[in-house]
Amino acid sequence: MAYFGLQNNWVPFAFLTGGFFSALAGFFGMKTATYASARTANAAKDSLNKGLQVAFRSGAVMGLVVVGLALLDISAWYLVLDHFIENAEPGHKLIMITTTMLTFGMGASTQALFARVGGGIYTKAADVGADLVGKVEAGIPEDDPRNPATIADNVGDNVGDVAGMGADLYESYCGSILATAALGASAFALNPAMQAKAVFAPMIIAAIGVFLSILGIFLVRTGENADMKKLMAALNRGVNVSALLIALFTFVIFYLLGFESWLGLSFSVISGLLAGIIIGQGTEYFTSHSFSPTRKIAESGKTGPATVIISGMGTGMISTFIPVITIALAILFSYLCATGFDVQQMMSGENLSMGLYGIGIAAVGMLSTLGITLATDAYGPIADNALDALGNTTAATGKGFAIGSAALTALALLASYIEEIKIGMLRLGETVLEFADGSNSVEIGKAGFADFMNYYQVTLMNPKVLVGIFIGSMMAFLFCGLTMNAVGRAAQKMVEEVRRQFREIAGILEGTGTPDYAKCVEISTKGAQREMLLPSLLAIAIPIVTGVVLGVPGVMGLLAGGLGSGFVLAVFMANSGGAWDNAKKFVEEGNLGGKGSQVHKATVVGDTVGDPFKDTSGPSLNILIKLMSMISIVMAGLTVAWSLL
Amino acid sequence: MAYFGLQNNWVPFAFLTGGFFSALAGFFGMKTATYASARTANAAKDSLNKGLQVAFRSGAVMGLVVVGLALLDISAWYLVLDHFIENAEPGHKLIMITTTMLTFGMGASTQALFARVGGGIYTKAADVGADLVGKVEAGIPEDDPRNPATIADNVGDNVGDVAGMGADLYESYCGSILATAALGASAFALNPAMQAKAVFAPMIIAAIGVFLSILGIFLVRTGENADMKKLMAALNRGVNVSALLIALFTFVIFYLLGFESWLGLSFSVISGLLAGIIIGQGTEYFTSHSFSPTRKIAESGKTGPATVIISGMGTGMISTFIPVITIALAILFSYLCATGFDVQQMMSGENLSMGLYGIGIAAVGMLSTLGITLATDAYGPIADNALDALGNTTAATGKGFAIGSAALTALALLASYIEEIKIGMLRLGETVLEFADGSNSVEIGKAGFADFMNYYQVTLMNPKVLVGIFIGSMMAFLFCGLTMNAVGRAAQKMVEEVRRQFREIAGILEGTGTPDYAKCVEISTKGAQREMLLPSLLAIAIPIVTGVVLGVPGVMGLLAGGLGSGFVLAVFMANSGGAWDNAKKFVEEGNLGGKGSQVHKATVVGDTVGDPFKDTSGPSLNILIKLMSMISIVMAGLTVAWSLL
Repeated sequence: MAYFGLQNNWVPFAFLTGGFFSALAGFFGMKTATYASARTANAAKDSLNKGLQVAFRSGAVMGLVVVGLALLDISAWYLVLDHFIENAEPGHKLIMITTTMLTFGMGASTQALFARVGGGIYTKAADVGADLVGKVEAGIPEDDPRNPATIADNVGDNVGDVAGMGADLYESYCGSILATAALGASAFALNPAMQAKAVFAPMIIAAIGVFLSILGIFLVRTGENADMKKLMAALNRGVNVSALLIALFTFVIFYLLGFESWLGLSFSVISGLLAGIIIGQGTEYFTSHSFSPTRKIAESGKTGPATVIISGMGTGMISTFIPVITIALAILFSYLCATGFDVQQMMSGENLSMGLYGIGIAAVGMLSTLGITLATDAYGPIADNALDALGNTTAATGKGFAIGSAALTALALLASYIEEIKIGMLRLGETVLEFADGSNSVEIGKAGFADFMNYYQVTLMNPKVLVGIFIGSMMAFLFCGLTMNAVGRAAQKMVEEVRRQFREIAGILEGTGTPDYAKCVEISTKGAQREMLLPSLLAIAIPIVTGVVLGVPGVMGLLAGGLGSGFVLAVFMANSGGAWDNAKKFVEEGNLGGKGSQVHKATVVGDTVGDPFKDTSGPSLNILIKLMSMISIVMAGLTVAWSLL
Repeated sequence: MAYFGLQNNWVPFAFLTGGFFSALAGFFGMKTATYASARTANAAKDSLNKGLQVAFRSGAVMGLVVVGLALLDISAWYLVLDHFIENAEPGHKLIMITTTMLTFGMGASTQALFARVGGGIYTKAADVGADLVGKVEAGIPEDDPRNPATIADNVGDNVGDVAGMGADLYESYCGSILATAALGASAFALNPAMQAKAVFAPMIIAAIGVFLSILGIFLVRTGENADMKKLMAALNRGVNVSALLIALFTFVIFYLLGFESWLGLSFSVISGLLAGIIIGQGTEYFTSHSFSPTRKIAESGKTGPATVIISGMGTGMISTFIPVITIALAILFSYLCATGFDVQQMMSGENLSMGLYGIGIAAVGMLSTLGITLATDAYGPIADNALDALGNTTAATGKGFAIGSAALTALALLASYIEEIKIGMLRLGETVLEFADGSNSVEIGKAGFADFMNYYQVTLMNPKVLVGIFIGSMMAFLFCGLTMNAVGRAAQKMVEEVRRQFREIAGILEGTGTPDYAKCVEISTKGAQREMLLPSLLAIAIPIVTGVVLGVPGVMGLLAGGLGSGFVLAVFMANSGGAWDNAKKFVEEGNLGGKGSQVHKATVVGDTVGDPFKDTSGPSLNILIKLMSMISIVMAGLTVAWSLL
C-alpha cells in the first residue's frame, strides 16, 4: 500500500482498538471488583483462607483480562498489517509492521491517562474530603454510612486502583511487547531468517507468561487457620513460582527458536523478572510497618504532624535508591547478556541494536508475570473494602512494580523512537545520512542507532539535549504539582458539601437522616474531569512543541529527563504515601498510644497528605513518562518533516 | 614543570586556598551579621530607612567580601601558574593553566558542603526543635529568651543563611569564572591572539561587576517615611541599576577586547543577567503573600494541616516551570548569540566550543551582580532578626538566584569536564582518538567536544549514559532525603532537651530561671557534624565509583541527570518552603482568623515542614550538583587511566 503524508493510515484505527480494549479491561475489572467486595466480606466471615480465595481470584480476573485483551489486540493487528502491508524486501516489511503497531500504544496511553489521572483525582478528592470532615471533624469512623462522601470514596477506590492500575499496566504490557518487537525487527534486519523470530519472541514469552500466571494463581491458598503472615507467604509463593517457571521456559523458547544468543537473551528475561521481585521487596521494606522505616515515621508523631511529614518525605526519598539501582543493574545486565558480555565492544553499531533488544526483552520479562502480579494488586482494593489491613502491603508493592515496569518500557520506547524517526525519513524520501563533519555518510536503510545519534548529535554536549533534559525533569514535577493541587481543590469542594449536608440534612449523624451520596459522587466526577484537562494537555503538547522547536535531540533529552526524574519522583511519592498509611495503621493497632492519641492524630495528617502522593500524583507519573514517549513516537514523522524544511 | 601521575601537583595547594578564602568570607559575613543585628534594631527604631541602610550595608559586606576574595584567589593563582607552567606552545599553555585552575573549585566546594549542608542541618534542627516545644507546646512566642533553643536558633540563622549562602555562591562564582576561562582557552585554541582575551574576559566582567555592585549598593536608600513596598522598590532599584550598567559595560569590554563576535557575546551576558532577574521575580510571585498562590495555601488551612501541606507541595512543584523555562531559554539564547545565530550549524565542531563558551559567559553574567544580590540576600537574616517581615521575600528570591546560578555553573562545569578528560588523556601519553566505527581518527590536541562525544559515545542511546541519568536523578532525591531525616533526628534530640530543661530547671517559663542555652547549641553542632557525614560521603563517592564502573559516558549521564533533577527539586523545595513561611505570616497579619486560630495552627505545621525544605535540603542540592561536577573534574585523570587499562 502507498504511504502518503507524515503518518501512516492505520493509526486512527489502531488508536481506537487500543483504547477500546484497555477500557474493556477496566470495565470487567471494576464489575468484578464490585461484585467481589461483598462476596469477600462474606467468605472472610467463614475463614481467612476463603476470604483470600475470593478476593484474590476476583483480582485475577482483572490480571488475566488485561493480558488476554492485550495479546488479542496485538495478534489481530499483526495479522491485519501482515496482510495489507506490501513490500518487496522481507526485512523491511517486518520493520514497517512493528513500527506501525507501536503507534497502537497511543490508544492505550490515552485510556490510561483518563483512568489513572482522572481516576486518581476522583478517588482522592472523595477520600481526602470524606476523611477530613468525617474522621477529623465529626469523629465518625472510616467508611461510616453516615458520611455522605463514603460512597464516592468506595467507588473511587475501584476507579483509581482497579481501572487505573489496570490501564496503566495494559499500556506498559503492550508498550514493552511492541517496542521490543520493533527493536527485534531492527536488530535482525540483515538476518531475515531470525528477524521474524525476534519479533515473535516477546509475544511468545508474554503468552507463556499468561499460562504460568494462571498456574501461580491456583497456588495461592493457605490453611484454614492462617494468620496475616501466612497469607502474605501464600501470595508470594504464587508470584515466585510463576516467575521461576517463566525463567525456565524462557531458556527453552529462545533455544527452540534457534537464537545464537539464546543463553544471553534468557538471562535478559531473568534480569527483568528479578528486578520486578527486588523492587517489590524493597517497597515492602520501606512501606510495611513490620520494618523500622515506617515505625520511625510513626514514632516521629510524638512531636506532632510536622515531624511525621518531614520524616515520611525523607524516608520516601531515601527509598528511591533500591528501585533505581535495581533498574540500573537490570539495564546494564540485560544489555550485556544480549550482546554476549562483550564489555569492550559495548557500543559498537551492531551490538547496540542487540543490547537495546535485550533491554526490551528484560521489560517483557518483568511484565510476563503481569497476570498474577496484577491479581495480587487488584485484589488490594477488594480486600481493602472487606479486610482492610491485608490489601495494604500488596497495593504498595504493586505500585513499585507498576513504576519499575513503566521505566523499563519507557526505555524501550525511547529506542523505538529512533526507529520511528528512521521510518519517517524513509517515508519522506530521504536516503542518506550526511554527517556534520562531512567525513562519511550512511544509507538510512542500513543505519544503526549510533549513526542516528551521530547524525542528530544526540550527545550530552548538545545544548538542545540538555535543555530537553531540563524540561523533561520539570514536566515530572509540573504534572505532579498540577494533580496534587487538583486533588486539593476537588477535596475542598467535597469538604464543603459534606459539611453542608451535616448542617442541612437533619439527623445524619444520629443515623436517622439519609445523606445525599449522589451529590458527592457528582462532585468527584466533575472535579476529576475538569482538573485532568490541563495536565493532560501539557503531557501531549510539550513533546510536540519540543519536537518542532528543538528537533530530535530536544525530544530525546525531554524523554530521558522526564524518565529519570519521573521514575525517581514516582517511587518517592508512592513510598512516602504507603509508609504514612502504614504508620497510621501501626498506631491504630495500639502502638504509641493507639487510636485517638496525639500520635494518632499526627499520623492521620501524614496519611491524608500521603493519599494524593500514592494514589494520584505518583502513579500519574507512570502515565506521563510513557505518554510523552508515545506522543513522540506517533509524531516522529512531523518532527522529521519539520527539521527537513 | 613535569606532570607525573594522574593529577597535577597544584591541586592540594589550590584546594586549601579555595577552602580558606571561602571560609574567610563566611567568617567575615557572620561577624558582620552578628554585630549588625543589634545595630539594625536600634537604627530601625529611628526610621525604616535607617534600619534598611544598616541592614543592607552590613549584608553588602558579605557580598563584597565573597566576590573580592574570589577574584583575589583566582588572580593570585593565575600569576603563580603562569610563572611555573612551562610549555612551548602558547595555545596549549593557557589550556593547561585554566584546566588546572578549575580544580581549585574543589576547595570551595568542600567548604560549601560544610557551610551549606552542615549549616542547614544545624539551623533547622534548632529552629524546628525550638518551634515545636516553644511555640506549639509551651505557647511562648518565637525567639523568646525563655526558650533554651532560641540562641541555637539565632546562631543557626547566621550559620545557615549567611555563611552557607555565601559559601554556596562563592563556589558558583569561582566555578563559573574558571569554567568559562577553560572553555575560552579551548574555543580559541587555534587563535593565540584572542585566546588570552577569552580567558580574561569572564574575570574582567566579574571585576567590573564588583564596582557596579558597589554603585548599586549606594543607590539603596529611601525616604524617611517609607513603607514596606518602597523598601522593596529601593532594593530592586539597586540590583536593576547594577545589572543594567553591567550590560552596557559588557558591550564596551567585548568590543575593546577585539572579539569578532563582541555583539553576540554581550547578548550572552545579558541573557544570564535577565535570567537571574526573571527567576527572582518568579520566586517572588510564588512565595510572597501579596500574590494568590501563597494566599491559597493559607486558605487551605481552613481544612487543616494536611491540605496546607498538599497545596504547598503542589504550588512548589508547579512553580518550577518559571526557573526551568528561563534557564532553558538562557542556555539556547546565549549559545546562539555566541555562535552568531547560526541555527543550522548549531552543532558543528567550532561552533560547539564557542556556544559552550557563550553559556559559560551567561553564567558569569548572571553572577556578575553577586556583590549586590548577595547583599540583598545576606541582609535577610540580619533584618529577620530585627525587622522580621522585611527579610522574608529577599531571602526567597536570593535562594532562586542561588539555584539558577548553580545550574548554569554546573552546565559550564559539565563542558569543562570534557576539557579535563582531554588533558588527562594527553598527560597519559594518548595522542589520537580512534573511533569505534574505524572510519577516521582525530588528533587529541585538535579534537573538539563533538569528537569526544563521538569517541566516548556519550549519546542518549548508550545504556551507560541512561544508567548515569537514572543514578544522577536518584542522587538528588537520596541526598535530599538524608538531609531531611538528619534534621528530623537532630530536631528530635533538641525537642527532648528543651522539654527536659522546662521540666528540670525551675522557673524557666516564669522568666526567673535561666535556660542552658549552651547545651542546645552543642546538640545542634554535634547533630550537624554527625548527620552530614553520610550524604557528603555519597556525593563524593558516587561520581568516583561511576567513573570507574561506567567511564566517561556514565559520569556525563550522572552529572546531567543530577543537574536536571537536582535543579528542579531544589526550586520546588525552596519555593514550597518559602510559600509555607509566608502563608503563615499572612495569617499572622490578621487574615483568616489571625494568630491562635485553627488556620494559624495549620499553617504553622506547613511552616515547620517548610523549614528543612527551604533551608536545608533545597539549598543543599545546589552544593550536590556542583560538587559532583567538581569531583568528576578532579578525578577525570583517574577515569581516563582506568578506562585505558
